[in-house]
Amino acid sequence: MAKTPKKSGLSGFPEWLPAERLVEQHVIDVFREVAELHGFSGIETRAVEPLDQLLRKGEIDKEVYVLRRLHAEESDAADDSGADPARTLGLHFDLTVPLARYVLEHQNDLAFPLRRFQIQKVWRGERPQEGRFREFYQADLDVIGQDTLPGHIEAEVAVVMAEILSRLPLPSFTVHANTRRLSEGFFQSLGLEDHAAVLRSLDKLPKIGAAAVRELLLAEAGATPEQARACLEFASIRTRDDSFAERVRELGGSGEMVEQGIAELTAVLERVEAAVPGVILADLSIARGLDYYTGTVFETFVAGHESLGSICSGGRYDSLATDNRHTYPGVGLSIGLSRLVSRMLSADLAHASRTVPTCVLVAVLDEQSRPLSDAVARALRGRGIATEVAPTATKFGKQIRYADRRAIPYVWFPGEEGEVGEVKDIRTGEQASADPATWEPPAEDRNVRILPGGGGESAI
Amino acid sequence: MAKTPKKSGLSGFPEWLPAERLVEQHVIDVFREVAELHGFSGIETRAVEPLDQLLRKGEIDKEVYVLRRLHAEESDAADDSGADPARTLGLHFDLTVPLARYVLEHQNDLAFPLRRFQIQKVWRGERPQEGRFREFYQADLDVIGQDTLPGHIEAEVAVVMAEILSRLPLPSFTVHANTRRLSEGFFQSLGLEDHAAVLRSLDKLPKIGAAAVRELLLAEAGATPEQARACLEFASIRTRDDSFAERVRELGGSGEMVEQGIAELTAVLERVEAAVPGVILADLSIARGLDYYTGTVFETFVAGHESLGSICSGGRYDSLATDNRHTYPGVGLSIGLSRLVSRMLSADLAHASRTVPTCVLVAVLDEQSRPLSDAVARALRGRGIATEVAPTATKFGKQIRYADRRAIPYVWFPGEEGEVGEVKDIRTGEQASADPATWEPPAEDRNVRILPGGGGESAI
Repeated sequence: MAKTPKKSGLSGFPEWLPAERLVEQHVIDVFREVAELHGFSGIETRAVEPLDQLLRKGEIDKEVYVLRRLHAEESDAADDSGADPARTLGLHFDLTVPLARYVLEHQNDLAFPLRRFQIQKVWRGERPQEGRFREFYQADLDVIGQDTLPGHIEAEVAVVMAEILSRLPLPSFTVHANTRRLSEGFFQSLGLEDHAAVLRSLDKLPKIGAAAVRELLLAEAGATPEQARACLEFASIRTRDDSFAERVRELGGSGEMVEQGIAELTAVLERVEAAVPGVILADLSIARGLDYYTGTVFETFVAGHESLGSICSGGRYDSLATDNRHTYPGVGLSIGLSRLVSRMLSADLAHASRTVPTCVLVAVLDEQSRPLSDAVARALRGRGIATEVAPTATKFGKQIRYADRRAIPYVWFPGEEGEVGEVKDIRTGEQASADPATWEPPAEDRNVRILPGGGGESAI
Repeated sequence: MAKTPKKSGLSGFPEWLPAERLVEQHVIDVFREVAELHGFSGIETRAVEPLDQLLRKGEIDKEVYVLRRLHAEESDAADDSGADPARTLGLHFDLTVPLARYVLEHQNDLAFPLRRFQIQKVWRGERPQEGRFREFYQADLDVIGQDTLPGHIEAEVAVVMAEILSRLPLPSFTVHANTRRLSEGFFQSLGLEDHAAVLRSLDKLPKIGAAAVRELLLAEAGATPEQARACLEFASIRTRDDSFAERVRELGGSGEMVEQGIAELTAVLERVEAAVPGVILADLSIARGLDYYTGTVFETFVAGHESLGSICSGGRYDSLATDNRHTYPGVGLSIGLSRLVSRMLSADLAHASRTVPTCVLVAVLDEQSRPLSDAVARALRGRGIATEVAPTATKFGKQIRYADRRAIPYVWFPGEEGEVGEVKDIRTGEQASADPATWEPPAEDRNVRILPGGGGESAI
């Protein structure tokens, strides 16, 4: 059943076959279901934003697609040329810039803290390469406060994320957490001043290794050999429980900021562990994003698929948006959904139990009796069983092949008017008489299921 | 609860508040659920197509948005300028052009007849005006055959559409059907040669009235007064049952083509009536699209909202796409979903029973006891009850107000460790002790419901 994802004819614009789309839809459904269970509201924002908004915060490295109306009047030429970034429209490249604009624009109509999720396509005009798309789904989850936002929301958002991921057909995953206060507090208690330089150096650990990072710490962050050693030891701390705290203190971490960071991270570990056991990890090597995020940061890795990088990242930021009345702090997480689905398909981590939603194909004896087949289908659908009627009254063998090609499990042979029909499980060949008003397929056949790859030992 | 839809800051790009989005999401969910019940596969295509594809079939009147990468290299300048329509990308303006391309591109991996539905945003750079958007959802449903497609599919697609619409919170709607063979056959049996001119004239009936159309028929379609009278009488035929046939014959309709058209339309009426009683209507005034569609055509009107125009249209076409091996005929229907949702919101045809998915807000006594509240929430969510925990341990009155502002119906007060808690229906003030492992809200409170406008007497 599982196939290599079909390459779209246009590089960087992935497109799935129906059976593949079932996997993507499943991931979207799980995200939404868990988010709603936690009381998050789904919103969508328009696909376009004024170019000046998109380039705010100096995000000019993002490859924005600019829009021009093909039949723009002469008078509009200026707007469409990109000359006036306030009137030129570009496609959004993430869901954060639109959220900030949405929150400011609708602040009087929204209740804060706003719990919102958003699953939409975004566009980036980057050179396409393995796992880098020009059009892809992003799935975001944020809690936005008005002026204030309690610290415990950081753990809460991580819990929701862990729940979403735990329901997906993925190998085991780990949510790595760190907090800015702990890292900065530690560097400070060592006597290191240039925190940004230390973070920049540590961020290179996975790429260049400890020895090279040590050189960077000495050369660029102004560290003594002793300080560099402590930083590297600090960055090697990874614990499932709160024992990271003792090790930080042993390495010389002390003071209010360090203790505050320890308390924050401990609370996150405890709360995520209570909700989704076995996935959260204190990982003090996480440096990326600590310049942007102001509290806890998260990255998530899938066992055996570390090359994907973090599949879900986020954290606490003190200002999503601000106007002359309010500041909007937030905690958010984002999944690069298309990237994840693409890997799920290409590595056969998951596939659909059949290629179509249909559970039953009702056969048609001849075109005159099609209304009988229609009536059977109607009765089954009335009880929520996805049913098709065979498009042509060919030989039954051919109608069975129609079902077989789509992995539809059951073919129904209607009886004559007033008579009971028969239903055949075309996988086993078993056939039995059945009444469309009461017949029930086994639970595992009722709806399409998304099965883990490699044969589908157990359903998700 | 119901509000005028919030105008987006950018004209033509609608954007909903969370409670409004619940209505839109409901419409999308119903479309998908019914389509899947009938065995249709959901697909998505990329948002962009090469400009030459978009302009195929001379669709240059469509206001296409062309894309340009902001940081396009010099060497790409030609591609992005629109000079080379094969390399320039534009946003799709409907879901039909992409479907045709998808079918050709993936024909070896698709099973035909292909039953597909597709719900995606499309873009048109038109001057925005009442009910005309530049970005909007379209929801399409098509059955595509390879080389052949049985005629009865025309009725089948209409049945699915009628089922979708009958599950939406709309006032009564009517699916108007006509068939090309009947109209053309009738004109032919009258001796009228220029069928296109007759159709063009009759299409103007709603706008200019019978007298003016009569003049057009005489002046432009070459009709005699007698022929014009017959055409106008023909176009006035609207019947719920097959009695349209007798009236067509009385007006002089005869011959193979007329009888074939009668048989087709009768079959559609019977089949739709059997599946969704009381919505289908033979309406021989329908002329629009008869130049493009080759079999039955459908338009759908909502009682009291005729000004919206047809909310769901479509029909049979003999060639969606073609290459040197195959032709792909189809039957399809399309709902202008955003336009419909916009009206549902502005006319208060529907609103959500609460503004958030949350059914229960668990109160927090103090920050120390937050884990107790978390545990209650976890137990409720484990049974599928959408639950939030209060963000701050303020006075209970304030926590109740948090729920009230969002129309969350229940507030849960957790007991001390090991003690049972209490749940309060904040609408009635009723409060009772309850165990999160077993408590069930009334079915109508479990999930957000979309209620008909004007007070919500009955749920959908």
